[in-house]
Amino acid sequence: MKKFLDSVETLVDDSLRGFALAHPELVLYHPEPRYLARAVPARAGKVALISGGGSGHEPLHAGFVGVGMLDAACPGQVFTSPTPDQMLAAAQAVERGGGVLFIVKNYAGDVMNFEMAAELLDRPQATVLVHDDVSLPDDQGMGRRGVAGTVVVEKLVGAAAEAGADLAACQALGERVVAATASMGVALTSCTVPALGRPTFALGEGEMELGVGIHGEKGRERVPLATATEIVPRLAEPVLDALRPTRGQPALLLVNGFGATPLQELYLMYGLARRFLDQRGVRVVRSLVGNYTTALDMAGCSLTLTLLDEALLRLWDAPVHTAALRWGC
Amino acid sequence: MKKFLDSVETLVDDSLRGFALAHPELVLYHPEPRYLARAVPARAGKVALISGGGSGHEPLHAGFVGVGMLDAACPGQVFTSPTPDQMLAAAQAVERGGGVLFIVKNYAGDVMNFEMAAELLDRPQATVLVHDDVSLPDDQGMGRRGVAGTVVVEKLVGAAAEAGADLAACQALGERVVAATASMGVALTSCTVPALGRPTFALGEGEMELGVGIHGEKGRERVPLATATEIVPRLAEPVLDALRPTRGQPALLLVNGFGATPLQELYLMYGLARRFLDQRGVRVVRSLVGNYTTALDMAGCSLTLTLLDEALLRLWDAPVHTAALRWGC
Repeated sequence: MKKFLDSVETLVDDSLRGFALAHPELVLYHPEPRYLARAVPARAGKVALISGGGSGHEPLHAGFVGVGMLDAACPGQVFTSPTPDQMLAAAQAVERGGGVLFIVKNYAGDVMNFEMAAELLDRPQATVLVHDDVSLPDDQGMGRRGVAGTVVVEKLVGAAAEAGADLAACQALGERVVAATASMGVALTSCTVPALGRPTFALGEGEMELGVGIHGEKGRERVPLATATEIVPRLAEPVLDALRPTRGQPALLLVNGFGATPLQELYLMYGLARRFLDQRGVRVVRSLVGNYTTALDMAGCSLTLTLLDEALLRLWDAPVHTAALRWGC
Repeated sequence: MKKFLDSVETLVDDSLRGFALAHPELVLYHPEPRYLARAVPARAGKVALISGGGSGHEPLHAGFVGVGMLDAACPGQVFTSPTPDQMLAAAQAVERGGGVLFIVKNYAGDVMNFEMAAELLDRPQATVLVHDDVSLPDDQGMGRRGVAGTVVVEKLVGAAAEAGADLAACQALGERVVAATASMGVALTSCTVPALGRPTFALGEGEMELGVGIHGEKGRERVPLATATEIVPRLAEPVLDALRPTRGQPALLLVNGFGATPLQELYLMYGLARRFLDQRGVRVVRSLVGNYTTALDMAGCSLTLTLLDEALLRLWDAPVHTAALRWGC
């Protein structure tokens, strides 16, 4: 295992301390229990948006704390759910009278621990469950996994909360965005969880894992390595099957890298995905290309499509100032 | 070799087409001869900033074309200098009466080809040579190599040009920034050049390459893999030796990933670098952490320090709107 770290035990904390030092105008780091909160509190009455999950997906979620997106993020250990005391402490710290909306990726541990935090919290609260991964119909009875579409949910609901939407409206919007969003990924290599010290799964030099999860979970099928042009439809078809866009449908396309795939390749995939979607009558009007929801050092990428209407488009374009997404301010 | 591409021959073009499709408000792609220019021409009289070099360092340089930074970028094939006709065509397309400043990383091929373009160009022009890599005293008689500090030069000179500085002032500023900037990197793995199809160099599981270049060139020494805390001084000491900051000196710290190193590790390195610099009396007042000058799929990172004064700080904070750097607009 070749990684920049001092010890497996301290790496999450060491990295978050570095993150908070690099972005003092955006975030405050609270180590015990662990959460990151906006450095400048939101205005009174704003719905507080809180997300979290295992570490190893950076910039998700800490990189999206700031104006127009999250109020707090709760990072667990690598690929391990945060504990309820983290969400509870974060909620108590950032709740401003408008209640708390938890944005939770659909994994058993995350769901359970966010539920426990919600039960313990003595403020109005609601939850949006993100389950955008269409690679598998169902993950052990839990429904679909939450992957890179989480970034889109956090951005759009974050903009609505900033603009004054109340808790019920933010929750309803979140569910609408989840329903309009689908993702599918492919891995060229495994990731290596630091505590394990070896690749999570074995993948031959001539193989790739279609529909891989962001923790290196099994995908839809293991297939021979193919050209980019051959790979794109195998990601985009299941996404279109899930969303069934109408002809001329405006959409947001996110090409997300898993951590070890260079930008050059991500833009190449983006260009091919655009061509494919054009042919299917999907009108991509907004785009995001880069490493936004990663799986440690996995080589691979995912496509996420969110069907847009005028309201969602305005929310996407609204100002955002976080470490990983910034425009309009 | 596991990469997202259709063919080695078309990958640079395929990727740039995707890039231009993703950022139509920022760039126009001209394929033959190959350059990217601002989508919205700069105002008449502004000095035109043009950079370029081999591909494989994305987002450098195409990701820095836009308001407040470059007017055009000329990408060569992977790790191969662009040809003079590219720079010449780009210069003729974006020159607005203020002359052209070429920002050139110090490699023999780049220097020669930019010189030829400058000789052929019938407009006022000047060149800034970037040579910030302090790992080796000299590269085959060429002086130091240009690496991630190039981003800082492009940002600061870009801001000055946008604010109305003339050609001589932009050149002088560029040289001042180069003199105030030093970088050093370390590789944990080699990169794989697509046309070669195998790693550029062999590095054992327990080894790292200190002072590596951004094409996988030989560094200062090959040493046993060490902890992050041990690695940081081995990068930062040569940087401080080169710059000799005074006590309390304000500085910009860039922790740059080489392409396959996750953000989690880069922020960890940033935190340790900050601690080290604090102890040496360097006051880091601005930061940048991420993949800005990459070496294809190399795992590794570099530290870049630029000593700042009030004028440089204002130029850093000035609005920029490019694909890879954006703030204030």
